[in-house]
Amino acid sequence: MQKTLSELAQIVGGKLIGDGNTLIKAITNIETPEKEALTFVTEEKFLGSLAGTTIAAVIVPPSISQFEKPLIQCPNPKLAWARLLWVFHPARAFDGKSSEKAVIHPTAKIGAGVTIESFAVIGENSVIGDRAVVRSGCVIDRNVQIGAETILQPNVMIYENCRVGNRVILHAGTVIGADGFGYVMDAGKYFKVPQLGNVVIEDDVEIGANTTIDRATMGSTIIRRGAKIDNLVQIAHNCDIGEHTVASAQVGISGSCTVGKYVTLAGQVGLGDHCEIGDQAIIGAQAGLPTGKKIPPQSAFLGSPARPLEDMKKQFAAQLRSAETLKVVRDLVKRVEALEQVPGT
Amino acid sequence: MQKTLSELAQIVGGKLIGDGNTLIKAITNIETPEKEALTFVTEEKFLGSLAGTTIAAVIVPPSISQFEKPLIQCPNPKLAWARLLWVFHPARAFDGKSSEKAVIHPTAKIGAGVTIESFAVIGENSVIGDRAVVRSGCVIDRNVQIGAETILQPNVMIYENCRVGNRVILHAGTVIGADGFGYVMDAGKYFKVPQLGNVVIEDDVEIGANTTIDRATMGSTIIRRGAKIDNLVQIAHNCDIGEHTVASAQVGISGSCTVGKYVTLAGQVGLGDHCEIGDQAIIGAQAGLPTGKKIPPQSAFLGSPARPLEDMKKQFAAQLRSAETLKVVRDLVKRVEALEQVPGT
Amino acid sequence: MQKTLSELAQIVGGKLIGDGNTLIKAITNIETPEKEALTFVTEEKFLGSLAGTTIAAVIVPPSISQFEKPLIQCPNPKLAWARLLWVFHPARAFDGKSSEKAVIHPTAKIGAGVTIESFAVIGENSVIGDRAVVRSGCVIDRNVQIGAETILQPNVMIYENCRVGNRVILHAGTVIGADGFGYVMDAGKYFKVPQLGNVVIEDDVEIGANTTIDRATMGSTIIRRGAKIDNLVQIAHNCDIGEHTVASAQVGISGSCTVGKYVTLAGQVGLGDHCEIGDQAIIGAQAGLPTGKKIPPQSAFLGSPARPLEDMKKQFAAQLRSAETLKVVRDLVKRVEALEQVPGT
Repeated sequence: MQKTLSELAQIVGGKLIGDGNTLIKAITNIETPEKEALTFVTEEKFLGSLAGTTIAAVIVPPSISQFEKPLIQCPNPKLAWARLLWVFHPARAFDGKSSEKAVIHPTAKIGAGVTIESFAVIGENSVIGDRAVVRSGCVIDRNVQIGAETILQPNVMIYENCRVGNRVILHAGTVIGADGFGYVMDAGKYFKVPQLGNVVIEDDVEIGANTTIDRATMGSTIIRRGAKIDNLVQIAHNCDIGEHTVASAQVGISGSCTVGKYVTLAGQVGLGDHCEIGDQAIIGAQAGLPTGKKIPPQSAFLGSPARPLEDMKKQFAAQLRSAETLKVVRDLVKRVEALEQVPGT
Repeated sequence: MQKTLSELAQIVGGKLIGDGNTLIKAITNIETPEKEALTFVTEEKFLGSLAGTTIAAVIVPPSISQFEKPLIQCPNPKLAWARLLWVFHPARAFDGKSSEKAVIHPTAKIGAGVTIESFAVIGENSVIGDRAVVRSGCVIDRNVQIGAETILQPNVMIYENCRVGNRVILHAGTVIGADGFGYVMDAGKYFKVPQLGNVVIEDDVEIGANTTIDRATMGSTIIRRGAKIDNLVQIAHNCDIGEHTVASAQVGISGSCTVGKYVTLAGQVGLGDHCEIGDQAIIGAQAGLPTGKKIPPQSAFLGSPARPLEDMKKQFAAQLRSAETLKVVRDLVKRVEALEQVPGT
Repeated sequence: MQKTLSELAQIVGGKLIGDGNTLIKAITNIETPEKEALTFVTEEKFLGSLAGTTIAAVIVPPSISQFEKPLIQCPNPKLAWARLLWVFHPARAFDGKSSEKAVIHPTAKIGAGVTIESFAVIGENSVIGDRAVVRSGCVIDRNVQIGAETILQPNVMIYENCRVGNRVILHAGTVIGADGFGYVMDAGKYFKVPQLGNVVIEDDVEIGANTTIDRATMGSTIIRRGAKIDNLVQIAHNCDIGEHTVASAQVGISGSCTVGKYVTLAGQVGLGDHCEIGDQAIIGAQAGLPTGKKIPPQSAFLGSPARPLEDMKKQFAAQLRSAETLKVVRDLVKRVEALEQVPGT
């Protein structure tokens, strides 16, 4: 594919500065400033590394208007760049057919243009929305609903009664709706509490590879619209994960947690049961929240047990000095003892 | 389904207080006190939220005998409630047949009433016990034994020579018997130590989704009777996990650990090689045990590195004040210096 | 199988001490000193436990030359032992055939002696090297290259365009090449950055069960020759993992990290984005490295946030005393106040 710079400026609604006839044959990143390619910078300081390279043009924020190459000014250069990546690399087209080597229950309702690859299984009364893609080895149990244009990568497993929205992406090996981890002790044995609820995944959610989201004991475990969940994340029964919230890899969320909108959970964060995380809160990597912890909206927390970021930074700084502090204290004890023994005091 | 309250009291062996003819059409939780439904409370303080609701009746401990609704007194109300959930929602019935789209080796021995779904594979000389269920996409390698009434959810993988007991549940995507992580350095390369042992899972174990349990180098990695293992847990080669022990999600247990009976490992706990955890010990979330750590029976540990819970709580409390303490110490140093310079001292 | 001790000494290039006609029927570990078996010790102090047992002979380091049993002296006894384990337990032979129940795209190139089991899928233009093994349920997408003698255990999933070298082992359920976790905020929604790169796994790598390695946004996520990655590890987009590096179970490596050669990452270690780990560095279990952290070669780090091992040990020791230290400081404050109030000072 090739486009002129003015065509690309128009696609992203940016302001062209320089030669609009500049031919762009690739969209690239700043580390590989190829010939006839377009990249982006978010700040002036990054422009230097592009000076003198063969890069053809640069997407820049409105604060930048001069450079040795043609520019496209955009309020969010990275977003414009990502949009143009899709123009040059359109989403994969699937064939819209059901493989003869898939097993589709006769009662299942398969929408228009659905792709179902070999060795996929679609259970009784399940519904697959238009143009959805179910790749090889996926197992969709009975009474499952999958929305339109949703993509299930290979070997995704969805237990009965779960619901997945439109334009959702579930990466390979992810398990939706396995039993919540619930038992009652009975004369020295754990008695299993039946897990009767389901998982509801709303529209525009993306879930990484080998992640597990358990069904609710009763009611629903909910992943709300636009949430992005990375690989190997555990979300337990009855959690409610807010709209446009991000959970990085290996996050673990225990039962009945409520996570607000636009929250960021960094890698390996752990939440005990019944935590409540306010909207737009940020929880730093490896932080641990004890059972029932409430995090205010728009706050940042770090550490295990977690506390407000600024406090935790001070605590970490003091802990760095803790061996030294211990020595100082021991020395002080001796000096105070000496002072106390001075006659007349 | 519907039952009278007296029928339900009889099923759970509880003492009826109030109108035994009360009709119960659902078993529910305290958050959804529906009409004609039965729920439970474990303590008097929770009863308040049910007052004035449409709930039909409540299972209570023997300490409670008065309420505006009929009651069933039981020593363990939650257990009685879980039992009645099973009455109203019996375990799923499978069809007891082998799919023509499964691949079953001619030497495999398939018990009576076994369900084997499409695209499952049963290897040479493997044995599947009566009424077991092998769901779609499971791969059971050669010489594997699966007990009676065991359920393998979709895409469970069991490597050769492993043994799984009766009434075991393995959730989707779980891998049993992959090679232990063992190498010897050989002239700058890691040389693989063959992993010749297996995994033995005893009766009544439940293992969560996408969990991995490695085979022993020699001998067996053992998960003993009644243990409950959550999602995304790693159990390395040659571990021995005791009866009725619980490991929450994302726990990691390194090689050759011995974990006693009735132990609780909370979420994201990590054990180094050769740890020994005594019976009934409790290890708090995200705790880390260094190689070879021994934890006494009935003790509680927390933190990384872990120490006894009460000590760790005090340590955490002191660490919270560590930035402030550092300031106080610096101030003390100055004041002691000043005192030391007083003439005559 | 049975061999004489002198045959075995010859195989491993060791020096025989004692009766070379001693018949060896098994290779065992020190915990199970069976009759007619050979084991090894790495240090003299471990020999004691073999005295008086029925063990037939022992592999020892050159520093040991006397014992009640025949010996084979080797510079690396464990390596010699591992080699003999392979002699007594040769690697599994697969049948070198493609199952009729696999789906192999007509454009795929399948090497000589390749085994492809039932319900495996090989995509368009993919290439499988000679004598490779693709076990049941694996899904190899289009344009994937798999090297010679590589083994893919059941249900391994490889996304399009990825490359896997020779003699690689990928354990069950592992996902190679899922999308990197990259988004740009766009008017309150996350806009997905297309993930256009791939994963390159070089020769002699072994990757554990249910591990996830994401494709690069552009370019390649690289796992270099001889690296050993355990179960449930997450390696994000654009990481570069050095030759002969080890990552234990549940390690999480964020985007664009560079990990050197011969590095050891212990269990549950977490690396933020853009970390750089020098060659031969050792990162202790559960350590956490903040974004952009650089670790020098041959250093050892521990803790979260991580610092040099020796410093962290001192910090941990001081933290153990932090509750007590707090008390001492409070007492000192009172004593200094008292001293300050002495008349004349």
